[in-house]
Amino acid sequence: MKSVVCFGAKDLRIEDRETPPVGPDEVLVRVEAGGICGSDLHYYNHGGFGAIRIREPMILGHEVAGRVAETGAAVEHIAVGDLVAVNPSRPCGDCEYCRRAMYNQCLDMRYYGSAMRFPHVQGAFREALTAKAWQCHKLPDTVSARDAAFAEPLSVALHAVNRAGALIGRRVLVTGTGPIGALVVAVAKSHGALQVVATDVVDAALERARAVGADTTINVASNASELDTFAEGKGTFDIVVEASGNQAALTSALNVIRPRGRLVQLGLGGDVSIPQNVLVAKEIELCGSFRFHEEFAWAVELIGAGRIPLAPLLTGVFPIEDAVAAFEAAGDRSESMKVQLSFG
Amino acid sequence: MKSVVCFGAKDLRIEDRETPPVGPDEVLVRVEAGGICGSDLHYYNHGGFGAIRIREPMILGHEVAGRVAETGAAVEHIAVGDLVAVNPSRPCGDCEYCRRAMYNQCLDMRYYGSAMRFPHVQGAFREALTAKAWQCHKLPDTVSARDAAFAEPLSVALHAVNRAGALIGRRVLVTGTGPIGALVVAVAKSHGALQVVATDVVDAALERARAVGADTTINVASNASELDTFAEGKGTFDIVVEASGNQAALTSALNVIRPRGRLVQLGLGGDVSIPQNVLVAKEIELCGSFRFHEEFAWAVELIGAGRIPLAPLLTGVFPIEDAVAAFEAAGDRSESMKVQLSFG
Amino acid sequence: MKSVVCFGAKDLRIEDRETPPVGPDEVLVRVEAGGICGSDLHYYNHGGFGAIRIREPMILGHEVAGRVAETGAAVEHIAVGDLVAVNPSRPCGDCEYCRRAMYNQCLDMRYYGSAMRFPHVQGAFREALTAKAWQCHKLPDTVSARDAAFAEPLSVALHAVNRAGALIGRRVLVTGTGPIGALVVAVAKSHGALQVVATDVVDAALERARAVGADTTINVASNASELDTFAEGKGTFDIVVEASGNQAALTSALNVIRPRGRLVQLGLGGDVSIPQNVLVAKEIELCGSFRFHEEFAWAVELIGAGRIPLAPLLTGVFPIEDAVAAFEAAGDRSESMKVQLSFG
Amino acid sequence: MKSVVCFGAKDLRIEDRETPPVGPDEVLVRVEAGGICGSDLHYYNHGGFGAIRIREPMILGHEVAGRVAETGAAVEHIAVGDLVAVNPSRPCGDCEYCRRAMYNQCLDMRYYGSAMRFPHVQGAFREALTAKAWQCHKLPDTVSARDAAFAEPLSVALHAVNRAGALIGRRVLVTGTGPIGALVVAVAKSHGALQVVATDVVDAALERARAVGADTTINVASNASELDTFAEGKGTFDIVVEASGNQAALTSALNVIRPRGRLVQLGLGGDVSIPQNVLVAKEIELCGSFRFHEEFAWAVELIGAGRIPLAPLLTGVFPIEDAVAAFEAAGDRSESMKVQLSFG
Repeated sequence: MKSVVCFGAKDLRIEDRETPPVGPDEVLVRVEAGGICGSDLHYYNHGGFGAIRIREPMILGHEVAGRVAETGAAVEHIAVGDLVAVNPSRPCGDCEYCRRAMYNQCLDMRYYGSAMRFPHVQGAFREALTAKAWQCHKLPDTVSARDAAFAEPLSVALHAVNRAGALIGRRVLVTGTGPIGALVVAVAKSHGALQVVATDVVDAALERARAVGADTTINVASNASELDTFAEGKGTFDIVVEASGNQAALTSALNVIRPRGRLVQLGLGGDVSIPQNVLVAKEIELCGSFRFHEEFAWAVELIGAGRIPLAPLLTGVFPIEDAVAAFEAAGDRSESMKVQLSFG
Repeated sequence: MKSVVCFGAKDLRIEDRETPPVGPDEVLVRVEAGGICGSDLHYYNHGGFGAIRIREPMILGHEVAGRVAETGAAVEHIAVGDLVAVNPSRPCGDCEYCRRAMYNQCLDMRYYGSAMRFPHVQGAFREALTAKAWQCHKLPDTVSARDAAFAEPLSVALHAVNRAGALIGRRVLVTGTGPIGALVVAVAKSHGALQVVATDVVDAALERARAVGADTTINVASNASELDTFAEGKGTFDIVVEASGNQAALTSALNVIRPRGRLVQLGLGGDVSIPQNVLVAKEIELCGSFRFHEEFAWAVELIGAGRIPLAPLLTGVFPIEDAVAAFEAAGDRSESMKVQLSFG
Repeated sequence: MKSVVCFGAKDLRIEDRETPPVGPDEVLVRVEAGGICGSDLHYYNHGGFGAIRIREPMILGHEVAGRVAETGAAVEHIAVGDLVAVNPSRPCGDCEYCRRAMYNQCLDMRYYGSAMRFPHVQGAFREALTAKAWQCHKLPDTVSARDAAFAEPLSVALHAVNRAGALIGRRVLVTGTGPIGALVVAVAKSHGALQVVATDVVDAALERARAVGADTTINVASNASELDTFAEGKGTFDIVVEASGNQAALTSALNVIRPRGRLVQLGLGGDVSIPQNVLVAKEIELCGSFRFHEEFAWAVELIGAGRIPLAPLLTGVFPIEDAVAAFEAAGDRSESMKVQLSFG
Repeated sequence: MKSVVCFGAKDLRIEDRETPPVGPDEVLVRVEAGGICGSDLHYYNHGGFGAIRIREPMILGHEVAGRVAETGAAVEHIAVGDLVAVNPSRPCGDCEYCRRAMYNQCLDMRYYGSAMRFPHVQGAFREALTAKAWQCHKLPDTVSARDAAFAEPLSVALHAVNRAGALIGRRVLVTGTGPIGALVVAVAKSHGALQVVATDVVDAALERARAVGADTTINVASNASELDTFAEGKGTFDIVVEASGNQAALTSALNVIRPRGRLVQLGLGGDVSIPQNVLVAKEIELCGSFRFHEEFAWAVELIGAGRIPLAPLLTGVFPIEDAVAAFEAAGDRSESMKVQLSFG
C-alpha cells in the first residue's frame, strides 16, 4: 500500500509498504485523511529537529482517521465500516510513569512517525494501517474523516488547557496561532474562558483564530504596542498558553500575565531567557505541556458532537500523490493553517 | 534613638533619629534583635540591586523583634512588656490584589527598609520603632528576642513551601543554603517531606543545613556529579526550592526534577536561561515565590512552640555600634549564616 | 415609589416607599426587571424558612436590573442611562473572611430582601433603588433588562460550577432543574463539560433543561431506573451539582458518582441522611456552595456577550401591580421556570 | 504452620495451614509481628460488619511484618534475612481505576483477611506467608518488627492526611483517637499542622494522643462544652479527620470547622445525618478516605527513619497461642490502643 516516506531533508517519496497482519486485538484501518503536523514539517524540511535526526527511511504522520476494514478475533466495540480516529500514542503501560497514570511521560513510548528512538516508529501516512483496537476511537457517521483527523492536534490543545486549570471567569492569552494555537483558542473559548486574546505575526492566522473564538487578535509584528495595554496593574491575563516557542512572545507574555497567573508552555523553540525578578515578584507559574493522554477520547467526543469549530482551520487537502506539494503548502504560514492528505 | 542608616555603598552610619509618636492603633517597640538580610547587604555593599538604588539616607532592616514599651489607646491583645516580632510588610488593603487577599502583590506596598519607592520606606534597625499593633505578633516568654527576629525570614521560607503544595510523600531538593535556603530545609523537613537534599558551594553552609534537617547535602562546587545520580529515570525530586538565584543551580535542578515536578524560584539573580524542550517535555512547573503574608503569623507560632531549629543558623550577634563589622561578617558566607544586631 | 412588601405568609402588598438620597459613591437605579427567587417564594408562602421568619414588613427581591437615573459626585464608570444589573450582596469588607477574600462568608453580610438579620435588609423589588456604584455592573445596550436580571441567579450557578473545579473532559449530573439547576446545566455545558445529564420530577422543567444544554434528561418520578444505568463500574459522573435539596436526589447521586467524584450541594432541604460507607469507600467529595462573589461580574460579562441561553428559562413577566399573581405563577413548577416582575 | 483462623463470631482457632509454594516473583516471609485491626475485631466479635459476613473459615490479619526466609528466582532488591513490612493490598492492575492510578478503588481488589469477596481472601496472621516481592518493603535493621507492623495502619492515616491537602498553617481536629485516629494525630503533627486538637470519650486514648503530638485533647463525654469554644466566628479548624464513625462526633465537627474547611471521613459507622444548611452555608468539603496505595511505601520510609512516634501506641503483645486473649484485650478501649500478636 502507498505510504509517505521521508528519507531525509526535502526527500519525500511515495512508496509501497507492506501492511502488518492484523492480530486478535487489532484492526486494519483504511486511512482517509491525515493532517500534516509541525514535526512532520521539520522532518521534511530539515531531516529532524534539535538532536533528533532521521537515520533510516520513516513513514511520516500521526494525525489520521479512516474506516475500519478488518477486525481481529478479540475486538469488541469496533466494527468493519466504522469511522475511527487513531491515537498515535502507545505508552508501555508498565514503567514508573505509566503505573502512576502519567502515560505521556512513559519511559518507553512509541509514537507514530517519530525518530526519537531507533529503529524509528513508522508513521500513519499510509493507505492501510494496522493498529490496536484501543487506539481506534469511533466517531458518528455525521462526521467527516477530515474532521476526525483533527483528533490528535485537538488532544494536544485540550491537554494544554487541562494543564491550565479551570477557565471559569479567566482571561486567556494565546501567543502563536498556528494549528495548535488556534485549536487552543477554540478549546479555551468552548471551555468557558471569559475572554480570549490571541497574538501572531501573520494576519491570515489571526483571522482564523477569530473565526474559532478569539475575542481580540493582535499582530505583534505590525502592532506590538497594542498588547502593552494589557500590562496595566501588573497584568491582565490569568492564563497564557504560549504556542509559538518564540522568545519575544514569552517575554511579552510575562509582562501581561497577572500575579500568580499560569503560563502553559506548549511551543518548542530552544533555550529561552527568563527575567527571574519578574517570575519571582509576580509569582508566575510557568509550566510545560507535552502531548496528551486521556484527552484523545475527549477530542473524539467533542468532534463527534460538533462542539469545536474546525472548518476555518483546514486550508488545503491534497491527494497522497501530491504529498510534496502538500508539505510545501503546509509550510507557508501566510496561506495555510492545517493541510491534510487524502488517501485511497 | 540610634538607628543604622545607609547613605550609599559602604557608607553605613549610626545616627539618632526621631521616633514618631504612637497613634491610637500603634505601639512603641524597643527593638532588641535585628537580623541582617541579603537585601540589607545589597544596599550596604552596592547601594542597591538591579534598578533599585538608594537615593536618600535610609534606615536598613526588616527582621526585628523587641519588647512593647507603650501602647496606643485603642490597642488590644498586646501589652507593655510583651515580646513581639514585627511584620515589616504593610500592604495598602484597598488595591485590586489586597481585595483578592493577595497582599504580597499589593500595588502600593510599604516594606521596611526598602528603596523600591521614593521617599524610601525607612527600616527597623533602630532602638525604638513605632508600628501598627497588627504588625506586632506576641511570643511566649520562653522565647528569646534572637529567635523571635527569625520570624521574617522564616515567613519567606514558609511562603515558598506553601507555594510548593503538600509535602507528604514528597522528595525535596533545596539549591542554595544561605539563611533562606537553610530555613526552607528546616520547614520542608518539619512539614513532612520524605527526603530533603540540599546543595551549595560552601561546606559550612551545608553543615548547618544538615543541622536543621537536610538528609543529604552536596557541595556542587567540589562534587557536582553526585547530584547527577538523582537524574535517573527522568528525575527524582517532586519539589525543588531554588534559593540561590544561580544559573547553574537552576539548570541542574531542571535535570533532576521529576516530570510534573514543581520548582519554586525564590532566589533572585537576573535573567536566566531555560531549556524550553526540557520544561515542556517533562511538563515542569516553575513558579515564583515572593515575600509572604499570612505566613508571618504561622512563623511566630512555630517559633513560639520551638518547632523550627534556629540555633544552628545564628552565627553572630553584634551590638548596634559595631554594625559595620556585623555587615562585613554577614557577607562572608564561609563563616556566617545569619548575623544579627543587638540593640539597647 | 412602588415597592413589593411582604408582611408575612401570603400577605404581599404594593406600597409606596421613600427612596434614600443618593450619596457621593451611589447611584439611583430605575428598576425595570426583577426575578422572583426561591427565597422570595418562601417568604411569600410561609413567612420565612427554617428558623428565619419575617418579623417586620420587608421589601422582597434581589434579582434586579434597570437604568441609572442619577449618579453621586464621586461615581465613575457608570453614567445616567446605563443598563445595570445590581449585585444584591454587600459584605462588610473588614471581617476575618472578607480580609481573606471569602466575601460570601462575611460575618456581617447585608443581602437584599433577607430576614436573616434584624432590622431586615430591605429588598430590591421597588421602582427606584439607591445602590453603591460598585454594586452596579453595566451591560451593553444589546441586552434587555430581562436578561440582565438573570445576573444574580447566574452568579449562583457559576459559583457552584466554580466550586466543582475544571469541567474539561468531565461528565456532569445536575439533580433538580428549577431556575438555578437549569442555569447550572447551561453553565456546565458552556464551560466545557463533556456530557450533562439532568434529573427532575417535572417534565416541563426537564424540557427547558434540554433547551439550555442538557444532553440527556431523566424524569426520576416516572422513570427512576434510567438513572441506575449510570451506576455501572462504581459510577459515571465526575461531578454532580445537587440543586434540589431532596433526599432521594442526593441518595441516587451518591450511587452514580464516580470514586473521588465531587458533589456540589446547592439545594437546601433540611437534614439529610448519608450512607457513610459509600462516601468513605468511594472517597466522594461532598461540598457546599453558597451564593457567590466574584462570579457576579462574570455573569454580567457572559450575559452581555450572549454566551448563556436565557430565553428558554423565562416563563412569565408580570407588571408590579400583579405581583401576587406573579408569585403564584412562580410557585407552579409544572408551568413556570423563572418569573419576573416588570417595573415602571 | 500455625494460623489464626476465624470461623465466626467469637470462634477463633489456631490451626495449621499449608504455606503455598514460592513462585519466581514471590518471597516467603516468617511473620514476626501482626497488629489487630478494627476489622479483625468485627470479624471476631460479630462475624462481620454491615452486609459482609464470614461464610467460610478465614485467616485474619493484614498488619504484619517479618523476616524473608526464601526468595523466588526472579526476585531482586529483597534478600533472605531482610525485615519487611507486607502490603496487604493487591489491586488487579488492569481495571479502569488501576489504569487511572486509583488503585485503592480497584474493581477486583484482593485484600488480606477480607470477606468482601468469596472465596474470602485469606489473611496474614500465620507463621509463614507467601507474598509477591513487590508487596514486601524492606526496613533497616535498626527497626523492630513491632514497629514495622505499624506500616499498614500508618498508611491509612497517611492517606487520610493526603486527602486533606497541605497542612502548612492549618489547624486540625481529629475526632476519635483509636489506633487510626492516634496515628492521624501523629501524621498531622509531623506534617506541619500548626495545631492538632483531638477528641475521644476515653481518657486513656486521649493521653496516648497527646503522647504522639496532640496539642490539646478533649474528652467529649465528660466535657463536651470545651469543644464549643472552637465554634466562634463560624469555626476554627481548617481540617477535620473524623476517625470515629460516630454521629455526635460528625455533628460537632461540622460546628467547629471553618467555612470551606475540609472534613475527611475515615471512620465507618452506618448512615449519618448531615445538616444540609450548615454544609451549604459554610461550604464545607466532606470527603471520604479509603485505605491507601502509594502511602505504604511512605509509611515504611517514615518508620525506618523513626519519624513517627509509635511506642506510645503499642499497649500489648501476645503470643499467637493467646490470640483469643489478644483479641479480647484489643477490644477494651479503656486499656488498649494497638495490640499485636507475636509469631514463631
